[in-house]
Amino acid sequence: MLNEKVEMRNLKGTFDFLPKEQRIRNKIINTLQQVFELYGYQPVETPILCHYDVLASKYSGGSEILKEVYKLQDQGERELALRYDLTVPFARLIAMNPNLTFPFKRYEIGKVYRDGPVKVGRNREFYQCDVDAIGVKGVTLEAELLLLAFHVFKKLEIDVYIKYNNRKLMSGLIEIAGINKEIVKDVITIVDKIKKITKAEFEKELNDIGLSNEQIEKLHTLFSMDLNSIKQQFGNLENQNINEGLTELYELEGYLSQTDILKNCKLDLSLARGHEIYTGTVFEVFTKDGLITSSIGGGGRFDKIITNFIDNGIEYPACGISFGLDVIYNYLLLTQKAEEQSSADLYIIPMGTFAHSMSLAERLREKGVKVEIALNQGSVSKEMKKANKLGMPFVTVIGEDEITTGKLTIKNMAKSEQKEYTLENIDALCADILRK
Amino acid sequence: MLNEKVEMRNLKGTFDFLPKEQRIRNKIINTLQQVFELYGYQPVETPILCHYDVLASKYSGGSEILKEVYKLQDQGERELALRYDLTVPFARLIAMNPNLTFPFKRYEIGKVYRDGPVKVGRNREFYQCDVDAIGVKGVTLEAELLLLAFHVFKKLEIDVYIKYNNRKLMSGLIEIAGINKEIVKDVITIVDKIKKITKAEFEKELNDIGLSNEQIEKLHTLFSMDLNSIKQQFGNLENQNINEGLTELYELEGYLSQTDILKNCKLDLSLARGHEIYTGTVFEVFTKDGLITSSIGGGGRFDKIITNFIDNGIEYPACGISFGLDVIYNYLLLTQKAEEQSSADLYIIPMGTFAHSMSLAERLREKGVKVEIALNQGSVSKEMKKANKLGMPFVTVIGEDEITTGKLTIKNMAKSEQKEYTLENIDALCADILRK
Repeated sequence: MLNEKVEMRNLKGTFDFLPKEQRIRNKIINTLQQVFELYGYQPVETPILCHYDVLASKYSGGSEILKEVYKLQDQGERELALRYDLTVPFARLIAMNPNLTFPFKRYEIGKVYRDGPVKVGRNREFYQCDVDAIGVKGVTLEAELLLLAFHVFKKLEIDVYIKYNNRKLMSGLIEIAGINKEIVKDVITIVDKIKKITKAEFEKELNDIGLSNEQIEKLHTLFSMDLNSIKQQFGNLENQNINEGLTELYELEGYLSQTDILKNCKLDLSLARGHEIYTGTVFEVFTKDGLITSSIGGGGRFDKIITNFIDNGIEYPACGISFGLDVIYNYLLLTQKAEEQSSADLYIIPMGTFAHSMSLAERLREKGVKVEIALNQGSVSKEMKKANKLGMPFVTVIGEDEITTGKLTIKNMAKSEQKEYTLENIDALCADILRK
Repeated sequence: MLNEKVEMRNLKGTFDFLPKEQRIRNKIINTLQQVFELYGYQPVETPILCHYDVLASKYSGGSEILKEVYKLQDQGERELALRYDLTVPFARLIAMNPNLTFPFKRYEIGKVYRDGPVKVGRNREFYQCDVDAIGVKGVTLEAELLLLAFHVFKKLEIDVYIKYNNRKLMSGLIEIAGINKEIVKDVITIVDKIKKITKAEFEKELNDIGLSNEQIEKLHTLFSMDLNSIKQQFGNLENQNINEGLTELYELEGYLSQTDILKNCKLDLSLARGHEIYTGTVFEVFTKDGLITSSIGGGGRFDKIITNFIDNGIEYPACGISFGLDVIYNYLLLTQKAEEQSSADLYIIPMGTFAHSMSLAERLREKGVKVEIALNQGSVSKEMKKANKLGMPFVTVIGEDEITTGKLTIKNMAKSEQKEYTLENIDALCADILRK
């Protein structure tokens, strides 16, 4: 008790969420879970606290990301770390469970950690919500994941469109521009930024890695073509990347042709999604109103990363999508009336009848009504003020009379109306309360 | 790629949960959340990663628990730690949000960490599921929490009883035995073990802290009395602890008198729940079948701990209950047929009709049916085997014919029956599938 006063605070980049906020976050998480399961994706959970060597072992994300890993030593002097994504734990889980049935479709929603500078959209403790399937080579999987993404956002009442592309086609176009295969990946990284930087900056970056003006001009031309023109002009060049990229894109569009989402999908030939891990289709989800400019979900095919991580001679083709809990949460905060939703449907004020009131409350809860009882047994006027402050939709006062007569008066707070019910028939009461 | 092969493994005391397991865990968590909210408890979330000084600042759990805290340093050389419970973050949250309305009823379900030896029931990364309210002095709160606990286990179909007691009464009885006030807490710790150790061990432990045989004999007599005898014999002694303890226990029983849970509540005068933090009522939940001997939930009143932590001159009386996710999970594994529940309700095998199958699947999902499509488009026999292995309740094959005629044949795998439906009226299909 005599130690110095410690300042109460959170680490920057980590957050408390109070009930009003957490209700929105739980709604998002519950929606994600429900939709993932509608598509046959199954929940798994992996630990946050890991052996460092496992986290650090051959991962394409590799050395860069390891700089941001929180490391620690336990009392047994083991080198431990906090996971920085859900993909490495997923690969480890696959490696440790050789009897899984493939395709293996899983989702995981959990916290990950990055020891880096805190900026808007970059926190130190945050959620990833990942849906991935392993063991499907064809783009049937991509089609399913796009459909799933639209389903998620329809449920959340967010109007979105999805940009998509194919990394093979990108590589092929860059090869056709006469660019050395060894720098294709660097060129992709720059092309990926084409909409975020000026034309001059774009050309300078390409110049800097050794491209001629002629090659840059060609890139401009190629990346502004449409799919059919590319097919007509280059389909017979026997460039494997072009051919596979085109086939996969046409196949994907074909699979989506019977759904109503295709009109909200936009091919964007410059989309690469940064990471080198992607090997085929890539996609990113954006809100139509553009209130948040960053993507609110995205993913793609990564056929090599789990294969390389496990390294047992078996191929693990994979594709997945990741939803950004925090960005979706921020969007909902921006757009939805931040309703001061109350913690319950009904507030019971017992006047010397706590035992009976609790018994009634329990009968209502059995029927799904959220009931809060005034635990401090204050005066009616004090508790009515409290009910108002908490935004309770319905309030009732239960005194000896109510118990004796079996009649309740329920006040609808929004309408300032009162209605009488009998204790014998609480179904009518439940129906009215749940309907609101 | 050239680094040594790293052994894929988890840290001892941390676990992966595969889908079959995670579905059970999610069911428990969802049930807890739903029931907590039926009682007006509201969700909050606090970070796992904390400033060490905040975690370590005056907590009654104090020095002992700090030995098991995972500590780490970040790149900014800040001293950080992983939280070891949900109570300290809760106290911090209260301190940092002075405008909360009281009573403040919150729940938090989250991971906590202990860097200690791993034993059965003691892991390094595990969940706590805490429900607490601050700002209620009376045992109305205790009554509500007991009711809530029974509601939780009724929903989980676990038959339980609850042991309860009052720490004030315990202290009073020990004082009456003529024992020095200064060692009352130590005696409580020993009395708490009375049912776990032999009579000889019990007496030796009490002897060791200086009790006479006469005092020990008196303790034996006192702790085997019933409440009414205690009241008759000692109710007029003006021992404050006895009087307050009796009042609170009778009040609690009175509040529960109109519910049907009282018959499953057992007063146990020796129950203390170890921790010094408790100041009044304590309770622990046990399964009736005794398959698991440890408690599967428990809590009590802790009027001092948050008050002392915040130390701003305001009193924060509090009472709460904590549910053990892992012990409940283990109990369900022991008792429920570990049904190899499938990941979906219906498995669609498209035969060259992926686009149309996906469109149909989406219509079914809109109505809540979990649909998995064969993404690898294998042969019918191969995919039927797969459906069997996955335990899919219903399977359908969709070829060109089905699309043209609009007629589907759905196979009920358990009954080996087939039934025909039309694509126009999928409501009948949904109803049958969801009914199972």
